[in-house]
Amino acid sequence: MIGGRATGPLSERKATCRAGSNIAFIKYWGVAGGAEDLNIPLNNSISMTLADAHTTTTVAWDDSGCLPEDSIAIDGEQLVGSSAERTVAHLDRLRALAGVPYKASVVSTNNFPMASGIASSASGFAALTVAGAAALGLRLDVTRLSAVARQGSGSASRSLFGGFVEWERGWGGGESEGNSLLDSRSVAHQLHSEDHWALRDVIAIVSTSAKRVSSSSGHRLAATSPLNAARTACVGAWLETVRQAIADRDIGKLGPILELDALAMHGVMMTSTPSLLYWQPGTLEVLQAVRAWREDDGVPVYFTIDAGPNVHLICEADSAAEVERRVGALPAVERVLVSGPGTGPELSDGHLI
Amino acid sequence: MIGGRATGPLSERKATCRAGSNIAFIKYWGVAGGAEDLNIPLNNSISMTLADAHTTTTVAWDDSGCLPEDSIAIDGEQLVGSSAERTVAHLDRLRALAGVPYKASVVSTNNFPMASGIASSASGFAALTVAGAAALGLRLDVTRLSAVARQGSGSASRSLFGGFVEWERGWGGGESEGNSLLDSRSVAHQLHSEDHWALRDVIAIVSTSAKRVSSSSGHRLAATSPLNAARTACVGAWLETVRQAIADRDIGKLGPILELDALAMHGVMMTSTPSLLYWQPGTLEVLQAVRAWREDDGVPVYFTIDAGPNVHLICEADSAAEVERRVGALPAVERVLVSGPGTGPELSDGHLI
Repeated sequence: MIGGRATGPLSERKATCRAGSNIAFIKYWGVAGGAEDLNIPLNNSISMTLADAHTTTTVAWDDSGCLPEDSIAIDGEQLVGSSAERTVAHLDRLRALAGVPYKASVVSTNNFPMASGIASSASGFAALTVAGAAALGLRLDVTRLSAVARQGSGSASRSLFGGFVEWERGWGGGESEGNSLLDSRSVAHQLHSEDHWALRDVIAIVSTSAKRVSSSSGHRLAATSPLNAARTACVGAWLETVRQAIADRDIGKLGPILELDALAMHGVMMTSTPSLLYWQPGTLEVLQAVRAWREDDGVPVYFTIDAGPNVHLICEADSAAEVERRVGALPAVERVLVSGPGTGPELSDGHLI
Repeated sequence: MIGGRATGPLSERKATCRAGSNIAFIKYWGVAGGAEDLNIPLNNSISMTLADAHTTTTVAWDDSGCLPEDSIAIDGEQLVGSSAERTVAHLDRLRALAGVPYKASVVSTNNFPMASGIASSASGFAALTVAGAAALGLRLDVTRLSAVARQGSGSASRSLFGGFVEWERGWGGGESEGNSLLDSRSVAHQLHSEDHWALRDVIAIVSTSAKRVSSSSGHRLAATSPLNAARTACVGAWLETVRQAIADRDIGKLGPILELDALAMHGVMMTSTPSLLYWQPGTLEVLQAVRAWREDDGVPVYFTIDAGPNVHLICEADSAAEVERRVGALPAVERVLVSGPGTGPELSDGHLI
């Protein structure tokens, strides 16, 4: 039904989807020039979809003409300002695909705190895309949904799949790379299902205050860092190591690259203009602790850090309780969340998409 | 008297020198391959010699043969282990220049705490070089002394001059670059005297615990970072800006480059193998505070960070009291030291060298 007109009463134009957030092992940082509004990344990225950190979103399209504008509520609060505009722009994408003018009522809840270091935009735009498309009766396969979700938030493309996921940058093959080709090629795919490896993401929340610069603005700044090209030039080799480490379930191979890429990304962020310094004192408390636990006590745990101050500690399931206990005892840590790998998005009828 | 035999009683083979430490605005990080033991740097660096953070060293050479080995005391403690070996190696350089076998008694005191974020190796090896050479009657000009001091500790080469100083890497001109040419070319020179600009270094000490990896070991690791070449490729442009900013006494031009190079250097350190994470929670507390004071309150202060957790806040003299007051009020800051630009080394007879 892509491009066709959707029909039927309001009650049928409604769907609910639950999607997991994800934690990247190789990071997405920086958009390719010339196609900024498509969120085409500078490099491929690899992530684990999270079972226990998810967003549930209901989209109801109004074909009666009674709703004068889109209404968007997240965790009980009506969205306003630039966050609302970003969601409306995503609803516009779905309206354009279906060829309908309907306004939407969107109600979304996260089972984790916003600004907690868990990417709510990843799970949020994945759930919005799947629920919105389903409610419009759009028949898009998961790869196409991944491309649509990517335009809302880059990392949301990865949350369209469960388990271990790679998002292709979709360019660099030497062929003509017009925007529509880029759009269709820059999609995620599953490397391994959620049953493949019992990894854990133990999330140390050291600050829940809002960032000074959102990560979507930050992506535009990556190219201003003198270190950016050096990082992206290395990512190809790191991706290969991470793919192999996941295939082999080898935390000792995964971990060092996980830390290296996170530190390289923050090196890029800190040296962009303006400089982005996402870390807080608690961030360093956790980083230094993780290094000491590993080097002094032999605990096989490694860190990664998204565009914020909180720290994700990656370990295997049999170390998770010990890591959770240790990290929870650090003075700077306000709260600890733990998640294993989860499935891709589920519609409320229980079907995976 | 280079290469000649020194003569005279012990009492005449003794000299005392006081030398200031320095704070680099463009950092020295990483040694050029193939000449590691000469401390030939990857890039030029620029620093300010500190008036109020200095080392006073007395060297007495024993031509009686009574002293069986070198004796080295710093701040009242006899030096042992690798630090002692490093000092003995430097005494060997002076012995070789003079062609004498004399053992030495070295007594050195710092007027600032060791491991305080002030480079005691810079002031220490500068004072040792000047006092040791003077006590042997070696007639070396200050440029040659700069090269000798550099072999003890790279940044010591800059402490041979007062005020604002640049240390040339000494290579890259396309000519033959044998080790002896490198050694004679990689020397410091003064850009401006200490009277040129009333800058202040307000040093926020957040930790006085010893580093896990000394900076002299760290220099060998720079090349393992995927970000290192990108930093050194940019340093040429940054040096030009810093030279101009110092010439113009323009803190608004100096400051952003100061922060950029410090963050780039720490990006290199963090992504080397093994990874060097010198920062502590207090480091981030100060960095975030400086950014907020500048952006929210208009205080013209900028940070730089050496190979350690403490933070150097650079501002003009008329802002220093305000900066000192603010930084002293931060919970993580244990102690604040303040210094302006100082002279080059002074021998105990009061003469500048």
